[in-house]
Parts: sequence; C-alpha cells; structure tokens
Amino acid sequence: MAEVDVNADLGEDFGHYRLAHDDAILAYVTSANLACGLHAGDPVVMARSVGLAKARGVAVGAHPGYPDLQGFGRRDMALREDEIYAFVLYQMGALAAFCRAHGVRLHHVKPHGALYNRAAVDRAAARGICRAIADFDPSLKVYAPYRSELARQAEALGLCACSEVFADRRYEADGQLTPRQHPDAVIRDPDEACEQVLLMVQEGRVRARTGEWLEVAADTICLHGDGPQAVQLAKTLHERLTQAGVRLRPA
Amino acid sequence: MAEVDVNADLGEDFGHYRLAHDDAILAYVTSANLACGLHAGDPVVMARSVGLAKARGVAVGAHPGYPDLQGFGRRDMALREDEIYAFVLYQMGALAAFCRAHGVRLHHVKPHGALYNRAAVDRAAARGICRAIADFDPSLKVYAPYRSELARQAEALGLCACSEVFADRRYEADGQLTPRQHPDAVIRDPDEACEQVLLMVQEGRVRARTGEWLEVAADTICLHGDGPQAVQLAKTLHERLTQAGVRLRPA
Amino acid sequence: MAEVDVNADLGEDFGHYRLAHDDAILAYVTSANLACGLHAGDPVVMARSVGLAKARGVAVGAHPGYPDLQGFGRRDMALREDEIYAFVLYQMGALAAFCRAHGVRLHHVKPHGALYNRAAVDRAAARGICRAIADFDPSLKVYAPYRSELARQAEALGLCACSEVFADRRYEADGQLTPRQHPDAVIRDPDEACEQVLLMVQEGRVRARTGEWLEVAADTICLHGDGPQAVQLAKTLHERLTQAGVRLRPA
Amino acid sequence: MAEVDVNADLGEDFGHYRLAHDDAILAYVTSANLACGLHAGDPVVMARSVGLAKARGVAVGAHPGYPDLQGFGRRDMALREDEIYAFVLYQMGALAAFCRAHGVRLHHVKPHGALYNRAAVDRAAARGICRAIADFDPSLKVYAPYRSELARQAEALGLCACSEVFADRRYEADGQLTPRQHPDAVIRDPDEACEQVLLMVQEGRVRARTGEWLEVAADTICLHGDGPQAVQLAKTLHERLTQAGVRLRPA
Repeated sequence: MAEVDVNADLGEDFGHYRLAHDDAILAYVTSANLACGLHAGDPVVMARSVGLAKARGVAVGAHPGYPDLQGFGRRDMALREDEIYAFVLYQMGALAAFCRAHGVRLHHVKPHGALYNRAAVDRAAARGICRAIADFDPSLKVYAPYRSELARQAEALGLCACSEVFADRRYEADGQLTPRQHPDAVIRDPDEACEQVLLMVQEGRVRARTGEWLEVAADTICLHGDGPQAVQLAKTLHERLTQAGVRLRPA
Repeated sequence: MAEVDVNADLGEDFGHYRLAHDDAILAYVTSANLACGLHAGDPVVMARSVGLAKARGVAVGAHPGYPDLQGFGRRDMALREDEIYAFVLYQMGALAAFCRAHGVRLHHVKPHGALYNRAAVDRAAARGICRAIADFDPSLKVYAPYRSELARQAEALGLCACSEVFADRRYEADGQLTPRQHPDAVIRDPDEACEQVLLMVQEGRVRARTGEWLEVAADTICLHGDGPQAVQLAKTLHERLTQAGVRLRPA
Repeated sequence: MAEVDVNADLGEDFGHYRLAHDDAILAYVTSANLACGLHAGDPVVMARSVGLAKARGVAVGAHPGYPDLQGFGRRDMALREDEIYAFVLYQMGALAAFCRAHGVRLHHVKPHGALYNRAAVDRAAARGICRAIADFDPSLKVYAPYRSELARQAEALGLCACSEVFADRRYEADGQLTPRQHPDAVIRDPDEACEQVLLMVQEGRVRARTGEWLEVAADTICLHGDGPQAVQLAKTLHERLTQAGVRLRPA
Repeated sequence: MAEVDVNADLGEDFGHYRLAHDDAILAYVTSANLACGLHAGDPVVMARSVGLAKARGVAVGAHPGYPDLQGFGRRDMALREDEIYAFVLYQMGALAAFCRAHGVRLHHVKPHGALYNRAAVDRAAARGICRAIADFDPSLKVYAPYRSELARQAEALGLCACSEVFADRRYEADGQLTPRQHPDAVIRDPDEACEQVLLMVQEGRVRARTGEWLEVAADTICLHGDGPQAVQLAKTLHERLTQAGVRLRPA
C-alpha cells in the first residue's frame, strides 16, 4: 500500500500580521513546517502554532530561513557556512523549546525559501544546515528535493533525507522546478495537481513541462499554506489520495 | 566552608560589534549568562560563547531579554505575560541548542536588564518567565534578586531560585539597588567591592548606602562583563574570595 | 459651512504581509497617515503608498511609531525624550523623501499607537515629538487629541495642532477614549458612528459612554484602515457628511 | 594646485555598541559618510554624528546599505532594483532630516559595503541607487569607484560622480581592489599608503599589486574609520598631503 506525507509551511504570521489559514490547512496535512522567527513567525505565533499542530496530531518540523523578515526569506543572502550552521541551529532550538513545552517531539527540518533553493545546489549551504541538524538531533528527518545537494549532505552525515515533491509546481526536463517567473510555473487546476501527485506517489514519475517523463521519489508532498486556493487544494488532495488508497502519515 | 558562584553577563557581541572581554572574564567566573539574540548576541556569537565557556569549565546560563537590540534590553517594554513567556521560552531554546551541540548542559536562567528589573517586582512578568522555565526544564536554576517577586514565583512553581547580589552596586535601606542615576550607585574601588562581597558571602549582610545593615543571601555574585575595569575587578574578587577560603563553584 | 478632515492610518503592509484595503479607503478620506518602517511599513510599501495617496489627491502625513514591528507599535516602550526626538525625526525624513520623489508635500504628522497614547499625557514624549517636527518643518500640522499634552507642546513650539476625534470609539466623561478592553469601547454600528461624528463636527460636542455631554473640537476625524468593516464605515461616513453639507478637505 | 577630498565611513555605532573613533577621525577628513540605520547607525547616533561633522566643518554624506545589521551590510542580498531604489531613498531621507535639523546640507551619497561592491558592476543596482538620488536631490554628489557601473549610471542620469580611490587597499592590474581574502589586500604601512595616495592625486596613476601602472582619477580618498590604526593613518595622510601642497576640501 502506497504511503506518503503531506506537508505545508505554516506558522508564518508575525505580530499583528496574519498570513495563512493554518487551522483549516492543518486538517488535511500530516506534517507542518513552522517558521522560527527570522523570516516569519514570532515567539507568540510559534507557541500557538505548535499547539494547533499538536491538537490535530500533525508532525511538527522546523522551517528555518534567512534572517530577513522584510524579504520573507525569499531573497538570497551571502551567508557563510558557519553563519548558516548557527542560524539553523538557533531556529531549531527555539522551535524545539515550544515543542518541549507542549510535550511533542520535533520531527523534521525543512529549510525555507531562498535557503532551501540554495541548499538544493550549494554544497556549503547544504552542509551548514545538515551539520546543525546532526549536532542538534540526528534523528530529525531532513525534507529535501530529490537528488539535491541537501539530500546528499544529509546522507553523508548519516541523517535521513525525505524526498520532497510539489503538488502544484511544474517540473523542467532536468528535474528542477519551473522558475516562478515562467507563466506555466504553477498548476492552478486542483485536479491536475492531484493527478501529478498520484503519478509521483504511485508510479514514481512526473511529466515535465516539455513532455518528458522523469523518475522521482515522493516521500513528502509540499502544499502551500497561503494563497486563496490553498485550503481547497489541501482538501481535494487529501480526498483524492485517500480514495486512491494512499495512506497519509508523517514522513 | 563558605561557597559562592560568581556570574557575569557575556556573549553580548553582535555581528560586527564587540562589547566585552569575554575570554578574559571567563577565567575568573563560575557561571556565564549568555545573551540569546534579542537584546544582544546573535547565532554566531552564541556558538562561540558556549564554546568559550565550555573550554573554561564555566556553567552556561540563558540571559533572555526584551526584543530590543537598539536599547540593549534596558528599556522597559509593555509586554503581556504570554509574550514574556513566549520570548523567554524562545531564547532558552535557542541557547540550549548551542549547548547541546557543544555537549554541555544549560545550567540556569537569568533575565536581562529591564526584564530583570521588572521581574523583581511585577508578578505577571515573573510568572511568565518562571512558567517558561518550568515548561522547558524545571531543573534549571533561576538567578533572582533576594526576596524578589521573581524568586517567589520560581519557588511557587517548584523551581530552584538562587539569590543574586552585586559586587559593585550600592544597596538602599529597603534592599533595592541604588538607582544608576545616583552618583554613588556604583562602587568603583575594587577593594571596597570585594569587602562588600565578603560580608555578604560570609556574614549574610550588607551595609546600605545610608548606613543600615541589611540581611542578605548570596548564592551568586554578579560581575559586569563590560566596562574598562571589568577584568580587573573579576580578577581581584577571584583572588580575595579564594584567599578568604571561600570556594567558588556554580550555583 | 462646516468643514472637516477625515484621516486613516494606511501604508501598514510590511514585506510579504498585507494588512489593509488602502486603495479602497483612500477613496473616502482626505488625509492619510503613512507608517514609516519602524512599527509597520517598509521602503517599498512607502513608495507605493505615497503614490496611491497622490493619485487620489489625499494629503500625506507621517505616522511615526515605536521601533517595534512585532508589537505593531502598540506596546509602550520606555524611550527617553532624546530617543523619541530622534526616532520621530528619522521617520519623518524617510517618508518625506518618498514625498519629494513623488512631487507631493508632507502635510502633517500623527504619532502612532502607544506613542500617540503616551504623547497625549506625557510632557517629555510630547515635547520630543514636537521638537522633531519644529526642527524638520514647522509648517507641518500636528494631529493630536483635543486638549492633550501633545496639543499643548505643539502650540508651545508654534506648531499648528489639529484636534483629532474618533468616529467609532466611545468617550469617557473625562474626555478620554474608553479603553479597548471595555466591551463598549468600539462603536460597531456605522449609523451610530456617523451620528457621533456629525454632533462633533456640527455642534462641537459628544456624548460620553455614561451619558454626559462633552465639549470637543473636531478638526480631523480618525477612521481605522483595517478591520472587516473599515471600508464600509469610510464610505458611509463620507456620504453622510457630504449629505449634511459638511465639506471634506485636509486639516 | 592639486585638490582632493578625504572621506571616511562614520556614524557606525549602534545603540549600546561603539565602533569607531569618529571624533578623532573627523579632525583629518573633509567629508563623512554616515550610516543611516539599516546596516549600522541608529536615529540617536545619526543626530550625534551630524552634529559632530557640522562642528568640524566636514561635509555630510549618506552611506546607505543593505538592511542587514547583523552582517553590517557586508553580505550580498538579492534585492530587486525597485527594492534598492526604495531602501536608498529611505536612508537618504532619514539622514537628510538630521541635516535639516542641524542646518547643514546633505552633500553626497556613497553606498556601503556589499551594496557598493555590487553597484560597481551591476547595472540594475547602480541604476536603482542613482534613480533614488536623482528623484531626491540631483545636486548630490555620488561617490563611486573609477570607471564603475555606478559612475556610468550616475552620469547617465545627469548626476555628478566623484571617483573614489582607497589609501590603504591594493589594486589589481584590471583596476579592481585586491580581494580582502588576499594576504596583500591591505597596505598596513602608513608611509606606503601615503605614497600611493600622492601618486594617485598628483599623477593620476597607481601601481597594481603585480607591478603594472594603472591610470586613475582621484576625486576623493577613502579612509577607514575603524581599526586600531585608523586615526594614525588619517593624521599622517592629512599631514603628508598638506606638506605636498595638496589642498583638502570636500569633493
């Protein structure tokens, strides 16, 4: 029986600012990547988000990002490996404290935004992240793009890398995500997104934007927590996967 | 045989900015209160500071403060109890991650600056801090002024409060520190500061600015890590306490 | 013929975070108080907000606040007068640069949130704000509560203070706003809010929560830019004032 | 008679943190580039720094940087042109407010750190900076590396670019500064630094690290305001230039 994890980036409110429909999304995912206060989130939001995830039985992961709230962690920053190491360790520790207070276990780590993109291809960034995880808790899962530098560094340090795929993003023939600037970067039709997911989960392949078939491993599926259609896609995907006999559980 | 802890606020560098002579001070103290990135310190500084403390065998404590780097955590902020709870939990967790990575144990918590002052007299602030400590790790020591609200709340939650006194600050007849604006607030003569400490440690009393004798418990002595004479006072106090047969060890 | 200004706090987005319906609100107000990057807003938001206000012919004011993005400038901070002076000067200058680039004139200054509340009663805070305005541009209008310390300090420095009243907030018998914690602090019925405004504008009086009549001067009416009903109230008030023959124009 | 400007980056303190010997350096320079609160400096520091520069008769320039206090503006950040435009406009405006309050004129703009380096070679960054300057005050001088993209964009927008050279940095044969990682990147001998400056100012040439002679225009010489030998080099250079009959005055 096929199994898969469905994750979403949540806990991205900040102070007076609200971003997403966390509580609605949490009903349909099996793991949540929670912002840790540097690119989004703040201590009060983190306390609340861990509580919400716990109430829903959703696995909690740290979602560390660059220290750039104004850019939402989506602007690349030229941090050295030791800076990335320290920033990731800091953020994991902060979130783990809220987990401990709530009596839940920190389950995984997924870098956010520009840090995720950089870690997919940059060895020093990937190593900084993975060294921080290994030093903090080597039992933590690392959510990483399939065959990425991040996955390689995780494995090199004895960590468990989970291959992450995207429900509503298009893939290029080389396995990379179609850049967001491309008009066809995002799959807007929920049915089409669900089709893509089922092919990835059940058959281990995905069709590139230009028609080629790519092999892929799908341990965990990323849903986006924001945007007007986020909740609807989460709900539809949950139903379709369940109907297709795929078991949903944390990676 | 009398025993006492000597602590200092360290790890207060930030980015390009250097503040104190941490390495020199660490030779003469038994516990270090490390800034956690909100009023001072940053992840790179924290990684380095925990390493330095470990190398010296000095006990590591968290020194959480208000989220106010520009004010160095010394300006009061009207945070609610749940905000204080969350900010303290966040900072403890972040520092504890560096401790775990270095294989040392987080030993104590001492609030910083305006948060320390407020927690001495404000029940909600003291409770927010102590609830965070109790939820995170109830074995952590709480450094608190003698007979303060912070000490009371710590005890009410079953935490171990250590009574903190100051080597180079003058006391008023009511047991409060003489406010910094007062010309005689700081004891500048190292010999006089050492005298005050010996009386507090060996006889449990201190002479107020206006001449009265006050009863006091001295579990830990606070030294200041910055200022031109910080290292000299630390060294002198270490020698005088040792000569007087007082054993120095973490609280 | 009665005249009045209608103002709203706008430009409060930050980075990825959206807060209000600025464009919709701008259709119904005559002056906009724009956040300046410390409690809300950022340089990109400021550039856009000044452009929107210009396009609508709405007068642009600076809305300086405490340096506390996480608290949205609503938590009091113990800043000294020279700090308040410098922070207000900084924020006015930053916003004025966007005005200059757009070819519009900075028209007024209204402190935000906890700084506004403190300046209503605290002489040093009010003086710090007004000294900054006088040093920067003494022709700027100062939006201040009726008979407040802020109004007094503005007049003492030769500045023009405009008396601000609130459409949807209740008043106490002593002329203060009913604190937000009170269940009856906010007037939720748009008709009742419009009635209160018309009485203030046309008759110079307002009925306190406890029934007393208070004298009041209404140079400018504050609308809230956020909240689900903000646009509706703005539209209704605009219609009712116009129907009643009140001319709307900047203070 | 040869003339030249000597500039230094000053006003880089932040809150409790002190960085440089501004007052001592100001005695030997003719223009000061003042940090504007995003990579260094804060409103209180800016008020003080403009006052010090005014007292010394030193021309005041804005020194805008990336919004990255922890990295001191020395880490590259992937900002879009419109973000750079808005951040530079914001910082110029904020500093200009302190100039207006002190009755001095803002004289020039020099980007800081990683933004300076990027603007030397990246057209979009250079254009964002220069558009902000042109929109704010086209009479402001732009300090830019000789033959850089920043100088080209300044001239394309009708701004006056001043060619900046470095007293204590080594040049490569292609005219670029020797990267800081290189062991011979910095000229540590004050006499050698003064020789290099005199050749640049009086003969319009400099000897590259590898021996080649390069043509160069030296409108303004950059001194570093921090580091242990900053004041000494400033003093020595001031004496040597004066003795050689070079007139020192703002660019």
